[in-house]
Amino acid sequence: DPDHTTETDCTPLIPCSKYDYVLVGKEWPDDSEHDRKQKAFIKTLENKGYQTQKLREKNKVYFGILAPEEIFSKYAYLLKNPDNCSEEKMVSTPTRIRIVKFMLDNTFIGNGEKLHALLKEKVFEAVFPLHEETEQKKLINKWARWTACFKQQPINEVRMYFGEKVALYFLWLGWYTYMLVPAAVIGVIVFLYGLAFFESNPLIKEVCEGNSTIMCPLCDKCPMWQLSETCTYAKVTHLFDNEGTVFFSMFMALWATWFLEIWKRHRSQEVCKWKLNNWDENEEELALDLINDSDCTPDRYQHSYLRSILVMVLVCCMIALIIGLAQALVVFRVIATVFLSDSKWQLLSDHANTVAVMMGAVLHYLTITIMNKVNRKVALFLCDLENVRSNIGKERNFTVKMFTFQFLTLFSSLIYVAFFLGRINGRPGSYVRIAGMWRLEECHPSGCITDLFIQMAVIMVLKQTLSNVVEFLSPWVSYKIHNLQDKSPKGGSESNCIRDSWLRNYHMNEVDAFSLFNEFLEMMIQYSFTTIFVAAFPLAPLLALINNFFEIRLDAIKMVSLERRMFCKKTIDIGIWLQVLQAIGVLAVIANGLVIGVTSDFIPRLVYKYIYGPCAKGATDIDCMSGYINNSLSTVYMKDHNIRRDFELGQLIFNGNNVTQCKYKDYRSDDDYAYTSQFWLIFAVRFAFVLLFEHVAVVIKFIAAWFVPDVPLAVKNENLDRKFERLKRELRKMENRTTDI
Amino acid sequence: DPDHTTETDCTPLIPCSKYDYVLVGKEWPDDSEHDRKQKAFIKTLENKGYQTQKLREKNKVYFGILAPEEIFSKYAYLLKNPDNCSEEKMVSTPTRIRIVKFMLDNTFIGNGEKLHALLKEKVFEAVFPLHEETEQKKLINKWARWTACFKQQPINEVRMYFGEKVALYFLWLGWYTYMLVPAAVIGVIVFLYGLAFFESNPLIKEVCEGNSTIMCPLCDKCPMWQLSETCTYAKVTHLFDNEGTVFFSMFMALWATWFLEIWKRHRSQEVCKWKLNNWDENEEELALDLINDSDCTPDRYQHSYLRSILVMVLVCCMIALIIGLAQALVVFRVIATVFLSDSKWQLLSDHANTVAVMMGAVLHYLTITIMNKVNRKVALFLCDLENVRSNIGKERNFTVKMFTFQFLTLFSSLIYVAFFLGRINGRPGSYVRIAGMWRLEECHPSGCITDLFIQMAVIMVLKQTLSNVVEFLSPWVSYKIHNLQDKSPKGGSESNCIRDSWLRNYHMNEVDAFSLFNEFLEMMIQYSFTTIFVAAFPLAPLLALINNFFEIRLDAIKMVSLERRMFCKKTIDIGIWLQVLQAIGVLAVIANGLVIGVTSDFIPRLVYKYIYGPCAKGATDIDCMSGYINNSLSTVYMKDHNIRRDFELGQLIFNGNNVTQCKYKDYRSDDDYAYTSQFWLIFAVRFAFVLLFEHVAVVIKFIAAWFVPDVPLAVKNENLDRKFERLKRELRKMENRTTDI
Repeated sequence: DPDHTTETDCTPLIPCSKYDYVLVGKEWPDDSEHDRKQKAFIKTLENKGYQTQKLREKNKVYFGILAPEEIFSKYAYLLKNPDNCSEEKMVSTPTRIRIVKFMLDNTFIGNGEKLHALLKEKVFEAVFPLHEETEQKKLINKWARWTACFKQQPINEVRMYFGEKVALYFLWLGWYTYMLVPAAVIGVIVFLYGLAFFESNPLIKEVCEGNSTIMCPLCDKCPMWQLSETCTYAKVTHLFDNEGTVFFSMFMALWATWFLEIWKRHRSQEVCKWKLNNWDENEEELALDLINDSDCTPDRYQHSYLRSILVMVLVCCMIALIIGLAQALVVFRVIATVFLSDSKWQLLSDHANTVAVMMGAVLHYLTITIMNKVNRKVALFLCDLENVRSNIGKERNFTVKMFTFQFLTLFSSLIYVAFFLGRINGRPGSYVRIAGMWRLEECHPSGCITDLFIQMAVIMVLKQTLSNVVEFLSPWVSYKIHNLQDKSPKGGSESNCIRDSWLRNYHMNEVDAFSLFNEFLEMMIQYSFTTIFVAAFPLAPLLALINNFFEIRLDAIKMVSLERRMFCKKTIDIGIWLQVLQAIGVLAVIANGLVIGVTSDFIPRLVYKYIYGPCAKGATDIDCMSGYINNSLSTVYMKDHNIRRDFELGQLIFNGNNVTQCKYKDYRSDDDYAYTSQFWLIFAVRFAFVLLFEHVAVVIKFIAAWFVPDVPLAVKNENLDRKFERLKRELRKMENRTTDI
Repeated sequence: DPDHTTETDCTPLIPCSKYDYVLVGKEWPDDSEHDRKQKAFIKTLENKGYQTQKLREKNKVYFGILAPEEIFSKYAYLLKNPDNCSEEKMVSTPTRIRIVKFMLDNTFIGNGEKLHALLKEKVFEAVFPLHEETEQKKLINKWARWTACFKQQPINEVRMYFGEKVALYFLWLGWYTYMLVPAAVIGVIVFLYGLAFFESNPLIKEVCEGNSTIMCPLCDKCPMWQLSETCTYAKVTHLFDNEGTVFFSMFMALWATWFLEIWKRHRSQEVCKWKLNNWDENEEELALDLINDSDCTPDRYQHSYLRSILVMVLVCCMIALIIGLAQALVVFRVIATVFLSDSKWQLLSDHANTVAVMMGAVLHYLTITIMNKVNRKVALFLCDLENVRSNIGKERNFTVKMFTFQFLTLFSSLIYVAFFLGRINGRPGSYVRIAGMWRLEECHPSGCITDLFIQMAVIMVLKQTLSNVVEFLSPWVSYKIHNLQDKSPKGGSESNCIRDSWLRNYHMNEVDAFSLFNEFLEMMIQYSFTTIFVAAFPLAPLLALINNFFEIRLDAIKMVSLERRMFCKKTIDIGIWLQVLQAIGVLAVIANGLVIGVTSDFIPRLVYKYIYGPCAKGATDIDCMSGYINNSLSTVYMKDHNIRRDFELGQLIFNGNNVTQCKYKDYRSDDDYAYTSQFWLIFAVRFAFVLLFEHVAVVIKFIAAWFVPDVPLAVKNENLDRKFERLKRELRKMENRTTDI
């Protein structure tokens, strides 16, 4: 066997930075196990025809790897060269990187250990392809900098550098950002509409002037209070709970449909240029397997219903755990409030509620952070358990699980606030109590939607800003530190060029198979926020728009300048993420319907206006909504022994007077506390509304899907022509062959 | 140009019945325009290399056509011979028939007229491929006869004779019939359950013993009546409106999901054997275009949003018309009842209601028959308007429209009965009246589900039996008549063999592009009946099962022995019908939810049992449902002037006594006739149930879809192996080529 390995000092065989991959490992003592394995791996590669180059630097060994051309020509032949649809043998750099990655991953040394195992054992520290400096500079110039913000993204150039998947990520992100503009504009208008009219609203007046209405205590230790105390709160609520929001959440449910429909068009328009029509990921995997080892047998599909059931059960357990954690937080807040208000510190017991909420928020943040890691581990474990054959299948399964877990982690508290908070509390005299002791949290008499709004605003603003800063700053800082440490002089010779290039790439931040996945996941979560509970927070699209405007550049700069070169799959679509988007779209319809129908006071107000209000009774001189607040409250009288029992003595005194009655938000009869006919009517209308909303939305979705063809006409015809030309060429070839004979 | 045409008397060039097609036309006078066109067409074919043979018989000319082999070898080359995945040039007979059909259809004579135009002008009367007697006999033996009922269908042989589409139809029909077995069994059990317990039911007892309860008249001229008069009716109702039906309709909603999921598996298992993985209908069309005329330019896709909107508007108009017709029938019945009861004939005025219903039924049948034709014309017109490029696209669009129209024609009256009948009638004192004059129909105090049941039973039994008889008998009779007319002696010589074969085929019943479509459509409508309103008619699956058991053989015998040979498309799935099945599945969930929630008395009974009944009030010694009927009735008092106005004087006397009060089915207060709290509660629970039912069904659908893979493991691995083998072969070829050089 010839030994191609050359030490740095000899003139290298290959021009600088043309190496496909660089493997880096510690310089282990001669003949140690690690050293032997290192050498064995390189030897195996050389036997397969790879050219290698070794470089020693500061206790590290660097191996440059150059794959034999034969691999690429086989690939081009077998797959009819997907890079340019011809029989030319040149494959594009991302394809080349991908192929070599596959070959490296499936090369094993004598004892059967593959690269993955060697990396785990620290035989090698890192494996990465090299950035191409000229291309990199071009990309920085055109794309990966702040001044390029308003220019169109050079998607094709991104594709030629990072591969199709990264290109599709940026294509999608750009498109999403673009589509957020109308949503953000309408969101702002809806917000301003609420802002403009809220002073003159009779409901707010009624609350703010409600001095004489004494309300029942909101918690066990709290005092009675006047309705007018929530004046500010009512104003804020009306900002988000008006007809504008109802319209806006319908709009956003449709927007999600519309977005998907024209995204499909936009994608197919872009992808058509790539000429990947007959692309088949499965086929590529088989072909690579075959090229790597012509005697291989392909992995076969496996399926076991038992395993499916096990996975389903485990997924359900995990979901139960995640939802349980959200409930635990609720219980924590309830109990903490009681304990804090029993505290000896005056300051603490006065602000027990606020402190409990803040502690809850901190705990919530911690849970999210921890669950982030747990979710990933569990999803990976479940995917291993499923034992899916192909990489695509594995990725798909992992994505679905990870998204579900992350989604629930972030949204379960919102779901609680939106649909349960303040709805299952019972009434004075028979409060629902946890373990028979602690009353549940209440929401305000103006409706629960403000609680939802606050939660949404906190999560969106904080989470996005924080994660963006962390996501960008940490690679930036670590890159700068490495650069400072490595201030060795740059030379002009070929070997110095190799050294510089390899070291520079090595010192960049690591990327792995999850890097792009994480970016996608983050965006999907954001998309969920902008569509699912948008009824409670019309500014969400605006916040998302601002965030994404920066996100595109941050990601671009990070990928081009701060991280090692990414190796990415070839794809023609965003894959399973499209289904995730569709699922979010469906959830958005359901959630928006429920928020308007159940969370907001839209339906009760409507019912009051048209059935119980003064206008329905024929009055014409007063506002149709006047009296609404009073109508929406029920009264309990303290003379009832059962009622009095639920309050402490201190609570029964307000402003020095004994309280004989107090009001609470519910539709109950004053005598037997049974729900009134109005309650059931509102209940029925709420459900009818949700039912109607969902079905109308589904019908509109169908019509939109039918009306907007997934593939634009030009693309269809382009594909038709290509197919026709191919057939024509083949027919001519056949005829020529026949005449030749 | 050589003239291949040979008169019958000469020895034919080609063995008997090996001709691809036979064209039949009247024997027109020499040099008439029709004659010239006939000759021109045959001439054109000959110029293209077709061999032809002419036969004169009883004023008809028959032209046998044999296509040149070159066409088939080109086809096999261009499409990698889908018939056996090799480069062999033999194509299967159905493929051959299909190719020649395409060529014939796209051959035009001098003035540009194609075969389609010539057929319209009666230049030719018929174009058909010939049955192959030996194969035909094999099929009759194995499949197309009654004794083969319990044997598995020889799908592959059907495919090799009639092509893939017919094979898939029978595969689907067989599978559907098979899957109906469990549904039918459970349906019968549910029916028997109702039958077994209905005597002892307290509700029925209450109705049958309700002598003292005087009910308000059901129509303007009707008398008051005692509750006990509907005793029988209540019994029948309980047969179909019990917990068993609720369970059964849930089961059927899931059955529909389950059916689709395992149909997909079953299909892919069967189709895998056909080795059509890379089959592409579009590509075939392009290839055939090219083979027919190598200078052709393919039709390009066209799309216009304006046209889409126009089509959508027209479809909506048509739907409105169909629904309007159903409403018109309702109005007709209402008005007819009044006019008939005013009739001078005692007999007629006594049975006004029954006569009106019967007249309505006849009118309904007429509407359906007429709309059948109208729907087809409108659907065809709309498809022409849409101007879709490919045949597949046209077929898809036609199918969707035609199914929608037919479905609504048959179901709109059921929808009225299920969800509107008796719900929008108002109350005594303020009845809802058409044009302020005629009261709407009422349904019985036992619930409207029996009305639905009667409608369903009539349509299913009558329609299916009738249509099967007509569908089979009419071709059978016409075939027998032809055979009687044509009793000429059969000879053994080659030319006689040709004459016999051609005449026999000619005298068989015509088939066209719609023949198979009609079979599919009929089955889809039946599938709709068995799933959509199954809650009202648990015997529907049984009826469908019995029908299909015969349907398979009837269709088979018809196709093999009574009709000309069908020319069918190659496909690998049932195409758009799968989406139709999915849509029916969705509708089934919605409709079953609504029937249980809204039509049946399930929810009111539940509410009574747990909230208003004696058990809810703590009584333990009596049946929980006792008092239900009385609770579900409201009272009006005749002392109220407004109430009295709504009745005639004669109506106010019952059994010779003045009636002071009467009861009607509703939940209203006795004083102000406002809905009671119970009404709104039931209303809310109804909607909540529908909402819950739909969402649970959707979730189960998703889980089922995930749990049951669409493609069985074996098929997946088979495909994988095939792909792998192909790649391996290609790689070897490449390596050989390299070493050769």
